[in-house]
Amino acid sequence: MMEKRRVVVIGGGFGGMRVVQGLRHAKHVEVTLIDKENHHLFQPLLYQVATAGLGSGSIAVPIRSVFREQKNARVFFGEVETVDFAHRLVKLKDGGQAEYDDLVIAVGAENNYFGNDHWAKHSFGLKSIRDAIGIRERILLAFEEAERYEDPARRRELLSFVVVGGGPTGVEMAGAISELGHMVLAGDYRRVQPEEIRVVLVEMADHVLTPFSLELRLAAERQLRELKVELRLGSKVNDVREDCVVLEDEVVPASVVVWAAGVKPVTFLRGLDLELTRWGHIVVDSSCRVRGHEHVYAIGDCACFVDEKSGEPLPGVAPVAIQQGKHVAKILGRQTDTHTPDKPFRYRDKGIMATVGRSRAVLEKGAIRMKGYLAWLAWGFVHILYLIGFRNRFIVFFNWSYSYWTFKRGVRLVTGLAARRRLRRIDQKAGPRIPTRPSKLEELQPTGSE
Amino acid sequence: MMEKRRVVVIGGGFGGMRVVQGLRHAKHVEVTLIDKENHHLFQPLLYQVATAGLGSGSIAVPIRSVFREQKNARVFFGEVETVDFAHRLVKLKDGGQAEYDDLVIAVGAENNYFGNDHWAKHSFGLKSIRDAIGIRERILLAFEEAERYEDPARRRELLSFVVVGGGPTGVEMAGAISELGHMVLAGDYRRVQPEEIRVVLVEMADHVLTPFSLELRLAAERQLRELKVELRLGSKVNDVREDCVVLEDEVVPASVVVWAAGVKPVTFLRGLDLELTRWGHIVVDSSCRVRGHEHVYAIGDCACFVDEKSGEPLPGVAPVAIQQGKHVAKILGRQTDTHTPDKPFRYRDKGIMATVGRSRAVLEKGAIRMKGYLAWLAWGFVHILYLIGFRNRFIVFFNWSYSYWTFKRGVRLVTGLAARRRLRRIDQKAGPRIPTRPSKLEELQPTGSE
Repeated sequence: MMEKRRVVVIGGGFGGMRVVQGLRHAKHVEVTLIDKENHHLFQPLLYQVATAGLGSGSIAVPIRSVFREQKNARVFFGEVETVDFAHRLVKLKDGGQAEYDDLVIAVGAENNYFGNDHWAKHSFGLKSIRDAIGIRERILLAFEEAERYEDPARRRELLSFVVVGGGPTGVEMAGAISELGHMVLAGDYRRVQPEEIRVVLVEMADHVLTPFSLELRLAAERQLRELKVELRLGSKVNDVREDCVVLEDEVVPASVVVWAAGVKPVTFLRGLDLELTRWGHIVVDSSCRVRGHEHVYAIGDCACFVDEKSGEPLPGVAPVAIQQGKHVAKILGRQTDTHTPDKPFRYRDKGIMATVGRSRAVLEKGAIRMKGYLAWLAWGFVHILYLIGFRNRFIVFFNWSYSYWTFKRGVRLVTGLAARRRLRRIDQKAGPRIPTRPSKLEELQPTGSE
Repeated sequence: MMEKRRVVVIGGGFGGMRVVQGLRHAKHVEVTLIDKENHHLFQPLLYQVATAGLGSGSIAVPIRSVFREQKNARVFFGEVETVDFAHRLVKLKDGGQAEYDDLVIAVGAENNYFGNDHWAKHSFGLKSIRDAIGIRERILLAFEEAERYEDPARRRELLSFVVVGGGPTGVEMAGAISELGHMVLAGDYRRVQPEEIRVVLVEMADHVLTPFSLELRLAAERQLRELKVELRLGSKVNDVREDCVVLEDEVVPASVVVWAAGVKPVTFLRGLDLELTRWGHIVVDSSCRVRGHEHVYAIGDCACFVDEKSGEPLPGVAPVAIQQGKHVAKILGRQTDTHTPDKPFRYRDKGIMATVGRSRAVLEKGAIRMKGYLAWLAWGFVHILYLIGFRNRFIVFFNWSYSYWTFKRGVRLVTGLAARRRLRRIDQKAGPRIPTRPSKLEELQPTGSE
């Protein structure tokens, strides 16, 4: 019997998962998927975990359970340290290693601070469940803190949220934070007033949602303003500090800063013996093969695939990773003794969409342009469709319907698991203690400052 | 107009929540609820979060949102440092303070290690969402670690779980871990075999579930054994170490130790000027009033209320806290100028129940004794009924139904938020690297030990 071909896939994102799934009928192949998390994450909905709309269990599924029945697949939970291409060996940080005949690198991207990595300390990216829960806890804590102060100015400072980057993630986050604050939280507090909540979206370009047509970009901006998001367009960030974001001509107080200004391929690739672009993407040929490595493929956000027609690199979006994953699975799934050349990968653009909030979205596919309610329904439909697993689809659909009708959110929990800092001590200068018989909350003021 | 009476409630558990709710029509009262978490936790289902059956959002609800419409109620998120009874002042750790006319202490209980507090380092209690997610992550990591070793003995060691304490929590945890391992997880792994999973329940008494009748205690033990839980009855724990539990005549390896052997009132009470029992409970009179403090009440797990009929203290269970909460609300809800004496509190025993696992439970109320499927349905019905909020009820019901029919669990996530330790480095001595062409997982063995 012929020995099985060993395929190792690094990364269980949209691309890596599709490679393994695409090999389910390939009897001559044994595939090992390695990921540093135990779950596949449906990243497009991560912003909803960050804004208390969904629990993390609704958008993440254990990788192992997806491949439970696929007997030629194995899952390995661990972090890759390096790849020894000469010996075809993937080495893990905890001491394990895996030999491969074919390797697929699908490690994705991480936040890009464009050289200002210290900004990461005072802001949250949005790549993992940890990030999302961190953002959720900080937003909720900001409201708790604001409720303690009598001085409206202090409350305004604490209820100021800044999102940097006007791409789909930034637009979705800004809209969702504003909705959470105005429609869900404000009513639960006694002191906090809706008008004290401020959400600022900073974008360097002149309009948000760069890849869309101008008509839709303006529509999205209108929708954001309807949700009371303040836009700072054509604004560059000069500094991100603990409690503010410094723009060129303005300092915006910020209780929470969400960094959605861009991503870059994960840094670990720089340690590998690979040809990278200036931004750190792996250079691949028309079959997604890594230049100079016949048996190594790179797909998704970590690869730079230049589209033949446009001459431009494909964007770092889920559909590219998914289609490239399927393509590579097809190449690897062929019997190895056939010597037909690989078909080149062709990206079919399925269109782009972004949601701004309740009943608000934009959608563009070629000449089709939609905005508002219908675009929002289409957005919801597509996202439910692509979620893995019946249970998750149902729970997400139920949660969305429930939130839509009741204006409530299900997962407003501060568990202290992720809180970067817990509740801060009440600022003694910000509000004097009321000496005479006070009402409940006025009492909850700092002591000892008299 | 008469000045409003200021009621402060410390603790948003079953008791404290009922006090505030019970005062919703009391126009002469202003009530402030202080809790160190932002959510009310439905503790009876916490073990299901720990075993990946439910997400934390399903059993926790923001305290604030519960009282959104109750205009005489305010919620304060903060930790109490001390109470100045002379000046009727509750002081918070972060600098705030609240004056009261009446105070209700409903701070609950914490794990009791009976003088061996260092055991806490190597075991998990089950009191908060943090605890539950910690247990969940450690159990899932244990399976991931086991899958790396070729040596079945090493796998057995890693897949050994110990639950200390055979009360309802311990019984539920042991049954749920065993089910999770045997019915849900085992099939997802390639090396791990169901028979390598070991769940040991240690109980000092001769039988589990002390408050039940012998017939039901034996039934519960039978049900546990059906679920492949090993029982160590009449066994005392001598030590809890990093990787094992030492009994009097046996050392049981333990990848995860769950401590469910008992609780005691929270330690912070010891710092207050109150009369406490030997175990730290606040001594209260027949109206739940704290002895020596006319305007201070204590309810639930932190209070010692001696039942008039039996002469015994009431047990630390949710129904006691709920009924005492309602009772105190009635006292405080009366107009203050009426001088009728308070009715004494009478506990109505609603019966006791515990579930062992799928289709298995025991239930006892007076002469009624049920076990098996019907008791399990009753258990589920009561727990759904008492969950706060339509959304949570529905999501829990859906998750249960889904798990029942599919044998799947929804929330098998290791997010690294709570992991007390991450994946351990592969033990070099435990399995040699396979030198010849190995299959995928055999490769994932330690290197450098040859």
